[in-house]
Amino acid sequence: MKKSEVIYGIHPLIEAIQSNKKTISKLFFQKGQQPKSNTYKKLINLSKKKNIPIQIGTKKKFSQLRNKNHQGVFGILSPIATYHIEDLLPMFYEKRKNPLLLILDRITDVRNFGSIIRTAACAGTDAIIIPKKNTALIGSDSIKTSSGALFKIPICKEKNIHNTIEYLMSYGLKIVSATTEKEKSSIYYNVDFSGPIALILGNEKNGICKKYLELSSEKAKIPAVKKGISSLNVSVACGILLYEIFRQRHFL
Amino acid sequence: MKKSEVIYGIHPLIEAIQSNKKTISKLFFQKGQQPKSNTYKKLINLSKKKNIPIQIGTKKKFSQLRNKNHQGVFGILSPIATYHIEDLLPMFYEKRKNPLLLILDRITDVRNFGSIIRTAACAGTDAIIIPKKNTALIGSDSIKTSSGALFKIPICKEKNIHNTIEYLMSYGLKIVSATTEKEKSSIYYNVDFSGPIALILGNEKNGICKKYLELSSEKAKIPAVKKGISSLNVSVACGILLYEIFRQRHFL
Repeated sequence: MKKSEVIYGIHPLIEAIQSNKKTISKLFFQKGQQPKSNTYKKLINLSKKKNIPIQIGTKKKFSQLRNKNHQGVFGILSPIATYHIEDLLPMFYEKRKNPLLLILDRITDVRNFGSIIRTAACAGTDAIIIPKKNTALIGSDSIKTSSGALFKIPICKEKNIHNTIEYLMSYGLKIVSATTEKEKSSIYYNVDFSGPIALILGNEKNGICKKYLELSSEKAKIPAVKKGISSLNVSVACGILLYEIFRQRHFL
Repeated sequence: MKKSEVIYGIHPLIEAIQSNKKTISKLFFQKGQQPKSNTYKKLINLSKKKNIPIQIGTKKKFSQLRNKNHQGVFGILSPIATYHIEDLLPMFYEKRKNPLLLILDRITDVRNFGSIIRTAACAGTDAIIIPKKNTALIGSDSIKTSSGALFKIPICKEKNIHNTIEYLMSYGLKIVSATTEKEKSSIYYNVDFSGPIALILGNEKNGICKKYLELSSEKAKIPAVKKGISSLNVSVACGILLYEIFRQRHFL
Protein backbone atom coordinates (compact mmCIF):
# COMPACT_ATOMS: atom_id res chain seq x y z
CA MET A 1 0.00 0.00 0.00
CA LYS A 2 1.31 3.45 -0.90
CA LYS A 3 2.09 5.85 1.94
CA SER A 4 -0.23 8.50 0.52
CA GLU A 5 -3.23 6.18 0.93
CA VAL A 6 -3.04 6.13 4.74
CA ILE A 7 -3.67 8.86 7.34
CA TYR A 8 -2.26 8.36 10.85
CA GLY A 9 -3.42 9.88 14.14
CA ILE A 10 -6.59 11.33 15.64
CA HIS A 11 -6.33 14.99 14.61
CA PRO A 12 -5.30 14.45 10.98
CA LEU A 13 -8.19 11.98 10.60
CA ILE A 14 -10.75 14.37 12.12
CA GLU A 15 -9.55 17.12 9.80
CA ALA A 16 -9.68 14.83 6.76
CA ILE A 17 -13.24 13.75 7.55
CA GLN A 18 -14.47 17.26 8.32
CA SER A 19 -12.88 18.74 5.20
CA ASN A 20 -15.24 16.64 3.02
CA LYS A 21 -12.50 16.71 0.38
CA LYS A 22 -11.21 13.25 1.13
CA THR A 23 -13.10 10.00 1.73
CA ILE A 24 -11.88 7.59 4.38
CA SER A 25 -12.82 4.06 3.37
CA LYS A 26 -11.93 2.38 6.71
CA LEU A 27 -10.63 3.22 10.19
CA PHE A 28 -8.35 0.91 12.18
CA PHE A 29 -8.28 1.21 15.99
CA GLN A 30 -5.68 -0.47 18.19
CA LYS A 31 -7.08 -3.32 20.29
CA GLY A 32 -7.53 -2.63 23.98
CA GLN A 33 -7.33 1.13 23.65
CA GLN A 34 -9.96 3.09 25.59
CA PRO A 35 -11.52 6.32 24.31
CA LYS A 36 -10.35 8.65 27.09
CA SER A 37 -9.94 11.93 25.27
CA ASN A 38 -12.70 14.05 23.80
CA THR A 39 -10.96 14.11 20.41
CA TYR A 40 -10.96 10.32 20.35
CA LYS A 41 -14.71 10.29 21.03
CA LYS A 42 -15.21 12.98 18.39
CA LEU A 43 -13.46 10.79 15.79
CA ILE A 44 -15.71 7.84 16.64
CA ASN A 45 -18.83 9.98 16.43
CA LEU A 46 -17.72 11.43 13.09
CA SER A 47 -17.04 7.97 11.69
CA LYS A 48 -20.55 6.85 12.70
CA LYS A 49 -22.07 9.94 11.12
CA LYS A 50 -20.17 9.43 7.87
CA ASN A 51 -20.74 5.66 7.78
CA ILE A 52 -17.03 4.84 7.90
CA PRO A 53 -16.49 1.20 8.91
CA ILE A 54 -14.25 0.57 11.92
CA GLN A 55 -11.92 -2.41 12.33
CA ILE A 56 -9.91 -3.39 15.40
CA GLY A 57 -6.20 -4.04 14.77
CA THR A 58 -3.86 -5.98 17.07
CA LYS A 59 -0.98 -4.36 18.97
CA LYS A 60 1.37 -6.34 16.71
CA LYS A 61 -0.10 -4.74 13.62
CA PHE A 62 0.30 -1.27 15.10
CA SER A 63 3.86 -1.96 16.33
CA GLN A 64 4.88 -2.40 12.68
CA LEU A 65 4.07 1.29 12.15
CA ARG A 66 7.18 2.34 14.08
CA ASN A 67 7.88 5.75 12.61
CA LYS A 68 4.27 6.85 12.48
CA ASN A 69 2.65 8.97 15.17
CA HIS A 70 -0.53 6.94 14.90
CA GLN A 71 -1.94 7.40 18.46
CA GLY A 72 -3.61 4.00 18.10
CA VAL A 73 -5.58 4.83 14.99
CA PHE A 74 -5.11 5.10 11.25
CA GLY A 75 -7.47 5.44 8.30
CA ILE A 76 -7.28 4.29 4.71
CA LEU A 77 -7.99 7.01 2.20
CA SER A 78 -10.36 6.13 -0.58
CA PRO A 79 -8.95 7.33 -3.90
CA ILE A 80 -12.47 8.19 -5.04
CA ALA A 81 -15.43 10.07 -3.60
CA THR A 82 -18.48 7.92 -2.84
CA TYR A 83 -22.13 8.93 -3.10
CA HIS A 84 -25.58 8.01 -1.83
CA ILE A 85 -28.07 6.75 -4.38
CA GLU A 86 -30.78 8.97 -2.86
CA ASP A 87 -28.79 12.00 -4.10
CA LEU A 88 -28.25 10.61 -7.60
CA LEU A 89 -31.47 8.84 -8.63
CA PRO A 90 -33.66 11.98 -8.79
CA MET A 91 -30.96 13.56 -10.99
CA PHE A 92 -31.03 10.57 -13.37
CA TYR A 93 -34.80 10.96 -13.76
CA GLU A 94 -34.48 14.73 -14.26
CA LYS A 95 -32.08 14.04 -17.13
CA ARG A 96 -34.78 11.75 -18.58
CA LYS A 97 -32.51 8.78 -18.19
CA ASN A 98 -33.78 5.22 -18.13
CA PRO A 99 -31.70 4.29 -15.07
CA LEU A 100 -29.54 1.18 -14.99
CA LEU A 101 -28.04 0.51 -11.56
CA LEU A 102 -25.83 -2.34 -10.41
CA ILE A 103 -25.93 -3.60 -6.81
CA LEU A 104 -22.86 -5.62 -5.78
CA ASP A 105 -23.78 -7.75 -2.77
CA ARG A 106 -20.47 -8.55 -1.06
CA ILE A 107 -18.18 -8.89 -4.10
CA THR A 108 -14.87 -9.31 -2.27
CA ASP A 109 -12.33 -10.32 -4.93
CA VAL A 110 -10.54 -7.15 -6.06
CA ARG A 111 -9.99 -8.41 -9.63
CA ASN A 112 -13.65 -9.33 -10.02
CA PHE A 113 -14.67 -5.98 -8.54
CA GLY A 114 -12.40 -4.00 -10.88
CA SER A 115 -13.46 -6.00 -13.92
CA ILE A 116 -17.16 -5.47 -13.08
CA ILE A 117 -16.69 -1.69 -12.78
CA ARG A 118 -14.91 -1.65 -16.16
CA THR A 119 -17.71 -3.62 -17.84
CA ALA A 120 -20.40 -1.54 -16.11
CA ALA A 121 -18.88 1.69 -17.43
CA CYS A 122 -18.63 0.27 -20.98
CA ALA A 123 -22.25 -0.96 -20.88
CA GLY A 124 -23.58 2.43 -19.73
CA THR A 125 -24.47 1.66 -16.10
CA ASP A 126 -25.45 4.89 -14.31
CA ALA A 127 -24.20 3.99 -10.80
CA ILE A 128 -22.83 1.11 -8.72
CA ILE A 129 -24.22 0.41 -5.26
CA ILE A 130 -22.01 -1.42 -2.74
CA PRO A 131 -22.47 -2.19 0.96
CA LYS A 132 -20.50 -0.34 3.62
CA LYS A 133 -18.92 -3.58 4.84
CA ASN A 134 -17.84 -6.86 3.21
CA THR A 135 -16.83 -5.44 -0.11
CA ALA A 136 -13.57 -5.22 -2.07
CA LEU A 137 -11.37 -2.33 -0.95
CA ILE A 138 -11.32 0.57 -3.38
CA GLY A 139 -7.58 1.07 -3.80
CA SER A 140 -4.78 0.95 -6.33
CA ASP A 141 -5.47 -2.69 -7.24
CA SER A 142 -9.15 -2.23 -8.01
CA ILE A 143 -8.39 0.98 -9.94
CA LYS A 144 -5.85 -0.94 -12.03
CA THR A 145 -8.16 -3.86 -12.82
CA SER A 146 -10.99 -1.44 -13.61
CA SER A 147 -8.68 0.22 -16.20
CA GLY A 148 -9.47 3.54 -14.53
CA ALA A 149 -13.26 3.10 -14.88
CA LEU A 150 -13.61 3.65 -11.10
CA PHE A 151 -13.07 7.35 -11.80
CA LYS A 152 -15.77 7.39 -14.50
CA ILE A 153 -18.79 5.89 -12.75
CA PRO A 154 -20.33 6.97 -9.41
CA ILE A 155 -19.96 4.45 -6.57
CA CYS A 156 -22.65 4.58 -3.86
CA LYS A 157 -21.80 3.10 -0.45
CA GLU A 158 -24.95 2.17 1.45
CA LYS A 159 -25.25 1.04 5.06
CA ASN A 160 -28.41 -1.00 4.58
CA ILE A 161 -28.82 -2.57 1.14
CA HIS A 162 -32.29 -3.90 2.07
CA ASN A 163 -33.53 -0.36 2.65
CA THR A 164 -31.81 0.80 -0.52
CA ILE A 165 -33.61 -1.85 -2.57
CA GLU A 166 -36.96 -0.79 -1.08
CA TYR A 167 -36.13 2.82 -1.89
CA LEU A 168 -35.31 1.88 -5.51
CA MET A 169 -38.58 -0.05 -5.80
CA SER A 170 -40.50 2.99 -4.57
CA TYR A 171 -38.89 4.91 -7.45
CA GLY A 172 -40.20 2.38 -9.96
CA LEU A 173 -37.05 0.36 -10.59
CA LYS A 174 -37.40 -3.32 -11.42
CA ILE A 175 -35.10 -5.37 -9.19
CA VAL A 176 -33.49 -8.29 -11.04
CA SER A 177 -31.27 -10.79 -9.22
CA ALA A 178 -28.64 -12.84 -11.05
CA THR A 179 -29.02 -16.39 -9.80
CA THR A 180 -27.84 -19.91 -10.53
CA GLU A 181 -31.06 -21.41 -9.14
CA LYS A 182 -33.31 -23.18 -11.60
CA GLU A 183 -36.49 -22.74 -9.61
CA LYS A 184 -38.57 -19.63 -10.07
CA SER A 185 -35.98 -18.10 -12.37
CA SER A 186 -36.18 -16.99 -16.01
CA ILE A 187 -33.49 -17.46 -18.65
CA TYR A 188 -31.85 -14.04 -18.71
CA TYR A 189 -32.77 -13.16 -22.31
CA ASN A 190 -36.45 -13.76 -21.52
CA VAL A 191 -36.41 -11.02 -18.86
CA ASP A 192 -37.74 -7.64 -19.99
CA PHE A 193 -34.99 -5.12 -19.29
CA SER A 194 -36.54 -2.20 -21.21
CA GLY A 195 -37.51 -0.07 -18.16
CA PRO A 196 -35.52 1.24 -15.18
CA ILE A 197 -33.47 -1.62 -13.74
CA ALA A 198 -31.39 -2.42 -10.65
CA LEU A 199 -29.41 -5.61 -11.28
CA ILE A 200 -28.07 -7.45 -8.20
CA LEU A 201 -24.94 -9.61 -8.38
CA GLY A 202 -24.02 -11.76 -5.39
CA ASN A 203 -20.98 -12.90 -3.46
CA GLU A 204 -18.58 -15.26 -5.32
CA LYS A 205 -19.31 -18.17 -2.97
CA ASN A 206 -22.66 -17.56 -1.33
CA GLY A 207 -24.59 -15.68 -4.01
CA ILE A 208 -27.17 -13.04 -3.17
CA CYS A 209 -28.53 -12.59 0.35
CA LYS A 210 -31.92 -14.34 0.72
CA LYS A 211 -33.65 -11.17 1.89
CA TYR A 212 -32.69 -9.36 -1.31
CA LEU A 213 -33.77 -12.34 -3.45
CA GLU A 214 -37.20 -12.20 -1.81
CA LEU A 215 -37.53 -8.50 -2.68
CA SER A 216 -36.54 -9.07 -6.32
CA SER A 217 -39.14 -8.71 -9.05
CA GLU A 218 -37.41 -11.36 -11.14
CA LYS A 219 -34.50 -13.81 -11.01
CA ALA A 220 -32.36 -14.09 -14.13
CA LYS A 221 -30.40 -17.27 -14.83
CA ILE A 222 -27.63 -17.82 -17.37
CA PRO A 223 -28.00 -21.43 -18.57
CA ALA A 224 -24.99 -23.76 -18.73
CA VAL A 225 -24.73 -26.48 -21.39
CA LYS A 226 -22.09 -28.70 -19.79
CA LYS A 227 -22.94 -30.16 -16.46
CA GLY A 228 -20.51 -30.62 -13.60
CA ILE A 229 -19.00 -27.17 -14.02
CA SER A 230 -19.71 -24.61 -11.38
CA SER A 231 -21.40 -21.44 -12.56
CA LEU A 232 -19.68 -18.65 -14.48
CA ASN A 233 -17.23 -16.25 -12.91
CA VAL A 234 -19.23 -13.30 -11.49
CA SER A 235 -17.50 -10.69 -13.67
CA VAL A 236 -18.25 -12.72 -16.81
CA ALA A 237 -21.89 -13.20 -15.72
CA CYS A 238 -22.08 -9.44 -15.15
CA GLY A 239 -20.88 -8.77 -18.72
CA ILE A 240 -23.43 -11.16 -20.22
CA LEU A 241 -26.32 -9.60 -18.27
CA LEU A 242 -25.35 -5.94 -18.75
CA TYR A 243 -24.87 -6.43 -22.48
CA GLU A 244 -28.22 -8.23 -22.77
CA ILE A 245 -29.72 -5.09 -21.20
CA PHE A 246 -27.74 -2.98 -23.70
CA ARG A 247 -28.96 -5.15 -26.60
CA GLN A 248 -32.62 -4.96 -25.52
CA ARG A 249 -32.47 -1.19 -25.09
CA HIS A 250 -30.64 -0.46 -28.36
CA PHE A 251 -31.69 -3.22 -30.74
CA LEU A 252 -35.27 -4.15 -29.93
CA MET B 1 5.34 -25.78 -9.53
CA LYS B 2 4.63 -29.24 -8.20
CA LYS B 3 7.36 -31.88 -8.55
CA SER B 4 5.04 -34.22 -10.39
CA GLU B 5 4.63 -31.70 -13.19
CA VAL B 6 8.27 -31.90 -14.33
CA ILE B 7 10.27 -34.72 -15.97
CA TYR B 8 14.09 -34.52 -15.84
CA GLY B 9 16.67 -36.12 -18.15
CA ILE B 10 16.89 -37.37 -21.73
CA HIS B 11 15.74 -40.99 -21.34
CA PRO B 12 12.72 -40.35 -19.09
CA LEU B 13 11.57 -37.63 -21.52
CA ILE B 14 11.94 -39.90 -24.58
CA GLU B 15 9.96 -42.60 -22.79
CA ALA B 16 7.24 -40.15 -21.73
CA ILE B 17 6.83 -38.81 -25.27
CA GLN B 18 6.88 -42.27 -26.89
CA SER B 19 4.37 -43.70 -24.41
CA ASN B 20 1.68 -41.30 -25.75
CA LYS B 21 0.15 -41.45 -22.29
CA LYS B 22 1.56 -38.16 -21.17
CA THR B 23 1.72 -34.81 -22.96
CA ILE B 24 4.81 -32.64 -22.57
CA SER B 25 3.82 -28.99 -22.92
CA LYS B 26 7.37 -27.57 -23.13
CA LEU B 27 11.03 -28.71 -23.17
CA PHE B 28 13.84 -26.70 -21.60
CA PHE B 29 17.43 -27.21 -22.86
CA GLN B 30 20.48 -25.85 -21.08
CA LYS B 31 22.18 -23.01 -22.97
CA GLY B 32 25.48 -23.86 -24.72
CA GLN B 33 24.93 -27.60 -24.63
CA GLN B 34 25.67 -29.43 -27.89
CA PRO B 35 23.70 -32.45 -29.08
CA LYS B 36 26.53 -35.01 -29.09
CA SER B 37 24.73 -38.23 -28.27
CA ASN B 38 22.23 -40.06 -30.43
CA THR B 39 19.65 -40.06 -27.64
CA TYR B 40 19.89 -36.28 -27.40
CA LYS B 41 19.25 -36.01 -31.15
CA LYS B 42 16.41 -38.49 -30.84
CA LEU B 43 14.75 -36.32 -28.18
CA ILE B 44 14.99 -33.23 -30.42
CA ASN B 45 13.56 -35.12 -33.40
CA LEU B 46 10.70 -36.46 -31.28
CA SER B 47 9.89 -33.00 -29.95
CA LYS B 48 9.73 -31.66 -33.52
CA LYS B 49 7.50 -34.53 -34.59
CA LYS B 50 5.13 -33.99 -31.64
CA ASN B 51 5.16 -30.20 -31.95
CA ILE B 52 6.58 -29.69 -28.45
CA PRO B 53 7.98 -26.16 -28.11
CA ILE B 54 11.63 -25.88 -27.00
CA GLN B 55 13.02 -23.13 -24.80
CA ILE B 56 16.68 -22.47 -23.91
CA GLY B 57 17.38 -22.09 -20.17
CA THR B 58 20.49 -20.46 -18.69
CA LYS B 59 23.13 -22.38 -16.73
CA LYS B 60 21.96 -20.49 -13.64
CA LYS B 61 18.42 -21.81 -14.05
CA PHE B 62 19.68 -25.36 -14.37
CA SER B 63 22.09 -25.00 -11.41
CA GLN B 64 19.04 -24.45 -9.19
CA LEU B 65 17.97 -28.05 -9.96
CA ARG B 66 20.76 -29.43 -7.74
CA ASN B 67 19.36 -32.80 -6.79
CA LYS B 68 17.95 -33.62 -10.20
CA ASN B 69 19.78 -35.75 -12.77
CA HIS B 70 18.58 -33.47 -15.54
CA GLN B 71 21.43 -33.99 -18.11
CA GLY B 72 20.77 -30.46 -19.36
CA VAL B 73 17.12 -30.98 -20.18
CA PHE B 74 13.75 -31.07 -18.46
CA GLY B 75 10.15 -31.06 -19.66
CA ILE B 76 6.92 -29.75 -18.20
CA LEU B 77 4.12 -32.26 -18.16
CA SER B 78 0.77 -31.05 -19.38
CA PRO B 79 -1.99 -32.16 -16.99
CA ILE B 80 -4.30 -32.66 -19.97
CA ALA B 81 -4.09 -34.37 -23.33
CA THR B 82 -4.24 -32.05 -26.33
CA TYR B 83 -5.77 -32.74 -29.73
CA HIS B 84 -5.67 -31.64 -33.36
CA ILE B 85 -8.81 -30.05 -34.75
CA GLU B 86 -8.44 -32.13 -37.94
CA ASP B 87 -9.17 -35.22 -35.82
CA LEU B 88 -12.18 -33.70 -34.04
CA LEU B 89 -14.09 -31.64 -36.62
CA PRO B 90 -15.23 -34.59 -38.80
CA MET B 91 -16.51 -36.26 -35.59
CA PHE B 92 -18.53 -33.15 -34.69
CA TYR B 93 -20.19 -33.22 -38.11
CA GLU B 94 -20.83 -36.97 -37.87
CA LYS B 95 -22.67 -36.33 -34.61
CA ARG B 96 -24.77 -33.76 -36.51
CA LYS B 97 -23.42 -31.01 -34.36
CA ASN B 98 -23.50 -27.35 -35.37
CA PRO B 99 -19.87 -26.75 -34.40
CA LEU B 100 -18.84 -23.83 -32.23
CA LEU B 101 -15.06 -23.45 -31.95
CA LEU B 102 -13.03 -20.84 -30.12
CA ILE B 103 -9.58 -19.78 -31.35
CA LEU B 104 -7.44 -18.06 -28.70
CA ASP B 105 -4.76 -16.04 -30.47
CA ARG B 106 -1.96 -15.58 -27.91
CA ILE B 107 -4.03 -15.26 -24.70
CA THR B 108 -1.17 -15.19 -22.19
CA ASP B 109 -2.75 -14.23 -18.84
CA VAL B 110 -3.45 -17.46 -16.94
CA ARG B 111 -6.54 -16.07 -15.16
CA ASN B 112 -8.06 -14.84 -18.42
CA PHE B 113 -7.26 -18.18 -20.06
CA GLY B 114 -8.85 -20.20 -17.24
CA SER B 115 -11.92 -17.98 -17.09
CA ILE B 116 -12.40 -18.24 -20.88
CA ILE B 117 -12.25 -22.06 -20.75
CA ARG B 118 -14.83 -22.07 -17.93
CA THR B 119 -17.19 -19.80 -19.88
CA ALA B 120 -16.63 -21.75 -23.11
CA ALA B 121 -17.61 -25.01 -21.40
CA CYS B 122 -20.76 -23.43 -19.90
CA ALA B 123 -21.78 -21.94 -23.27
CA GLY B 124 -21.40 -25.28 -25.08
CA THR B 125 -18.24 -24.64 -27.12
CA ASP B 126 -17.11 -27.88 -28.82
CA ALA B 127 -13.33 -27.26 -28.79
CA ILE B 128 -10.71 -24.60 -28.07
CA ILE B 129 -7.85 -23.97 -30.50
CA ILE B 130 -4.62 -22.47 -29.18
CA PRO B 131 -1.23 -21.87 -30.82
CA LYS B 132 1.80 -24.00 -29.98
CA LYS B 133 3.71 -20.96 -28.72
CA ASN B 134 2.79 -17.69 -26.98
CA THR B 135 -0.11 -19.02 -24.98
CA ALA B 136 -0.87 -19.36 -21.26
CA LEU B 137 0.71 -22.48 -19.73
CA ILE B 138 -1.77 -25.26 -19.03
CA GLY B 139 -0.94 -26.02 -15.39
CA SER B 140 -2.39 -25.99 -11.91
CA ASP B 141 -3.20 -22.24 -12.05
CA SER B 142 -5.19 -22.38 -15.28
CA ILE B 143 -7.00 -25.53 -14.07
CA LYS B 144 -7.96 -23.71 -10.87
CA THR B 145 -9.25 -20.56 -12.60
CA SER B 146 -11.12 -22.71 -15.14
CA SER B 147 -12.92 -24.42 -12.19
CA GLY B 148 -11.87 -27.75 -13.67
CA ALA B 149 -13.43 -27.00 -17.09
CA LEU B 150 -10.04 -27.70 -18.73
CA PHE B 151 -10.81 -31.40 -18.18
CA LYS B 152 -14.25 -31.09 -19.80
CA ILE B 153 -13.51 -29.46 -23.16
CA PRO B 154 -10.95 -30.59 -25.79
CA ILE B 155 -7.96 -28.28 -26.26
CA CYS B 156 -6.32 -28.33 -29.73
CA LYS B 157 -2.73 -27.11 -30.01
CA GLU B 158 -1.93 -26.04 -33.55
CA LYS B 159 1.45 -25.09 -35.00
CA ASN B 160 0.09 -22.77 -37.69
CA ILE B 161 -3.17 -21.00 -36.82
CA HIS B 162 -3.36 -19.45 -40.31
CA ASN B 163 -3.48 -22.91 -41.90
CA THR B 164 -5.97 -24.04 -39.24
CA ILE B 165 -8.31 -21.13 -40.10
CA GLU B 166 -8.10 -22.01 -43.82
CA TYR B 167 -8.87 -25.64 -42.95
CA LEU B 168 -11.92 -24.58 -40.90
CA MET B 169 -13.15 -22.39 -43.78
CA SER B 170 -12.86 -25.35 -46.16
CA TYR B 171 -15.16 -27.21 -43.78
CA GLY B 172 -17.78 -24.46 -44.03
CA LEU B 173 -17.16 -22.66 -40.73
CA LYS B 174 -17.78 -18.93 -40.58
CA ILE B 175 -14.75 -17.19 -39.06
CA VAL B 176 -15.75 -14.31 -36.76
CA SER B 177 -13.10 -12.07 -35.16
CA ALA B 178 -13.79 -10.15 -31.97
CA THR B 179 -12.48 -6.65 -32.55
CA THR B 180 -12.50 -3.18 -31.00
CA GLU B 181 -12.13 -1.53 -34.42
CA LYS B 182 -15.06 0.54 -35.60
CA GLU B 183 -14.30 0.21 -39.29
CA LYS B 184 -15.66 -2.70 -41.26
CA SER B 185 -17.07 -4.29 -38.10
CA SER B 186 -20.64 -5.18 -37.12
CA ILE B 187 -22.19 -4.77 -33.68
CA TYR B 188 -21.97 -8.30 -32.30
CA TYR B 189 -25.72 -8.92 -31.99
CA ASN B 190 -26.17 -8.08 -35.69
CA VAL B 191 -23.85 -10.95 -36.70
CA ASP B 192 -25.62 -14.15 -37.77
CA PHE B 193 -24.24 -16.92 -35.55
CA SER B 194 -26.75 -19.61 -36.50
CA GLY B 195 -24.39 -21.80 -38.57
CA PRO B 196 -21.01 -23.42 -37.78
CA ILE B 197 -18.76 -20.80 -36.19
CA ALA B 198 -15.12 -20.33 -35.24
CA LEU B 199 -14.80 -17.26 -33.00
CA ILE B 200 -11.32 -15.70 -32.69
CA LEU B 201 -10.27 -13.78 -29.57
CA GLY B 202 -6.99 -11.88 -29.59
CA ASN B 203 -4.08 -11.08 -27.33
CA GLU B 204 -4.84 -8.83 -24.33
CA LYS B 205 -2.64 -5.98 -25.65
CA ASN B 206 -2.27 -6.44 -29.38
CA GLY B 207 -5.58 -8.01 -30.38
CA ILE B 208 -5.87 -10.49 -33.24
CA CYS B 209 -3.03 -11.02 -35.74
CA LYS B 210 -3.70 -9.02 -38.95
CA LYS B 211 -3.41 -12.12 -41.13
CA TYR B 212 -6.24 -13.81 -39.25
CA LEU B 213 -8.38 -10.65 -39.39
CA GLU B 214 -8.02 -10.61 -43.17
CA LEU B 215 -9.21 -14.21 -43.38
CA SER B 216 -12.27 -13.54 -41.18
CA SER B 217 -15.73 -13.57 -42.72
CA GLU B 218 -16.92 -10.95 -40.24
CA LYS B 219 -15.62 -8.73 -37.42
CA ALA B 220 -17.82 -8.46 -34.33
CA LYS B 221 -17.58 -5.40 -32.09
CA ILE B 222 -18.99 -4.93 -28.60
CA PRO B 223 -19.98 -1.25 -28.33
CA ALA B 224 -18.94 0.87 -25.34
CA VAL B 225 -21.13 3.69 -24.04
CA LYS B 226 -18.58 5.60 -21.97
CA LYS B 227 -15.63 6.95 -23.83
CA GLY B 228 -12.09 7.05 -22.50
CA ILE B 229 -12.24 3.53 -21.13
CA SER B 230 -10.19 0.89 -22.85
CA SER B 231 -12.12 -2.06 -24.19
CA LEU B 232 -13.56 -4.86 -22.09
CA ASN B 233 -11.44 -7.54 -20.44
CA VAL B 234 -11.00 -10.38 -22.95
CA SER B 235 -12.67 -13.00 -20.71
CA VAL B 236 -15.73 -10.74 -20.25
CA ALA B 237 -15.88 -10.05 -24.01
CA CYS B 238 -15.69 -13.82 -24.58
CA GLY B 239 -18.70 -14.38 -22.29
CA ILE B 240 -20.79 -11.72 -24.04
CA LEU B 241 -20.04 -13.15 -27.51
CA LEU B 242 -20.43 -16.86 -26.63
CA TYR B 243 -23.76 -16.21 -24.88
CA GLU B 244 -25.01 -14.14 -27.83
CA ILE B 245 -24.27 -17.24 -29.94
CA PHE B 246 -26.12 -19.35 -27.35
CA ARG B 247 -29.09 -16.97 -27.40
CA GLN B 248 -29.31 -16.92 -31.19
CA ARG B 249 -29.12 -20.71 -31.40
CA HIS B 250 -31.65 -21.40 -28.62
CA PHE B 251 -34.02 -18.47 -28.66
CA LEU B 252 -34.41 -17.35 -32.26
